[in-house]
Amino acid sequence: MTKPSAPPQKRVRNPDAMRNRLLDVAAEAFQSLGYHNTSMHDVMRNAKATGGAVYHHFPSKKALGLAVIRERVAKAVEETWIEPVKSARVTREGILAVFDQLIAELDHGKRILGCPLNNLALELSLADPEFQIAIQEVFEQWRIAIAQKLRSDKSRGLLKKFEPEAFATFVVACLSGAMALAKASQNAKAIRACARQLARIM
Amino acid sequence: MTKPSAPPQKRVRNPDAMRNRLLDVAAEAFQSLGYHNTSMHDVMRNAKATGGAVYHHFPSKKALGLAVIRERVAKAVEETWIEPVKSARVTREGILAVFDQLIAELDHGKRILGCPLNNLALELSLADPEFQIAIQEVFEQWRIAIAQKLRSDKSRGLLKKFEPEAFATFVVACLSGAMALAKASQNAKAIRACARQLARIM
Repeated sequence: MTKPSAPPQKRVRNPDAMRNRLLDVAAEAFQSLGYHNTSMHDVMRNAKATGGAVYHHFPSKKALGLAVIRERVAKAVEETWIEPVKSARVTREGILAVFDQLIAELDHGKRILGCPLNNLALELSLADPEFQIAIQEVFEQWRIAIAQKLRSDKSRGLLKKFEPEAFATFVVACLSGAMALAKASQNAKAIRACARQLARIM
Repeated sequence: MTKPSAPPQKRVRNPDAMRNRLLDVAAEAFQSLGYHNTSMHDVMRNAKATGGAVYHHFPSKKALGLAVIRERVAKAVEETWIEPVKSARVTREGILAVFDQLIAELDHGKRILGCPLNNLALELSLADPEFQIAIQEVFEQWRIAIAQKLRSDKSRGLLKKFEPEAFATFVVACLSGAMALAKASQNAKAIRACARQLARIM
């Protein structure tokens, strides 16, 4: 005998869990298929949600897209790119740790989906000014975190050659570009090359 | 009195012109709206073509996408990124000339559409293996051209610090990433910062 499925009202009692599930499902679909290539119906079906539940939390696809950028992509950038840099002794070590982590994941034969921020940035920055601002804010958080760390290195005499603000932009560009090349080639060669070059110049 | 439009058979007499027009229209739409966000019908309408003409030249949207990558995106990369480097005295000057050209265009208040290769790379590399290979080939042409120039610099004693192959990958990543940041922020600040940093390390 199969277990009867939970009555719908049980789900409604935990709207936060449903909202989170919708965001998780949408973030994954936007990352692997793209925003335009994912329909609200796909999200509904994959999250096992009703149309009513989806539209209760996200009255439009754009609302869902903005929430994915602000709550999922921003979080992924924080965890993958920002946190290892913040917690490192110096910026250089933090950035190399990020690269090593990426290379280790890619060498495990995973398909290279690319950086979720980069993917959505290129797809959506022109589509809508609100998307553009939301995406720019995440890039800014990332850039500011690296610049802060570089300033701290500088104040301790550990960074001599570079001006923290511009160099932080450069590092973000290198990481984004390396991820784009890795996605296009489906191998980690570009990430290794960029890690090596950044390590040499820092 | 308005001029009567040309009878359809006149168009058929110049199939190359029609094919080129379809590629131009599709390349522009893929660049500004994205591949998935452009329909074959959009291309047909904007090229003022019949459905028959479109499907004669491109029996599927994928065939059109591949032709845009191989014949339009590859050409744009050749003209914008490769040619100025090839014709420069040394790689460093060629790369800075590319950046200056970009900055001049962006400062004229154009919307920043981003690098067409990068845009399609992130949208299509996972969508289909043939797209991925076509995109990878264009990135490779670009990388190889820079590596050749760097080797030539090296043989003349003008490049001391870097290994040409890996450094060429790094330069391509920096340019791609800088374009992604410029698109996300809709200003040229990231391109200026990256140009300055690359100039300092080369």
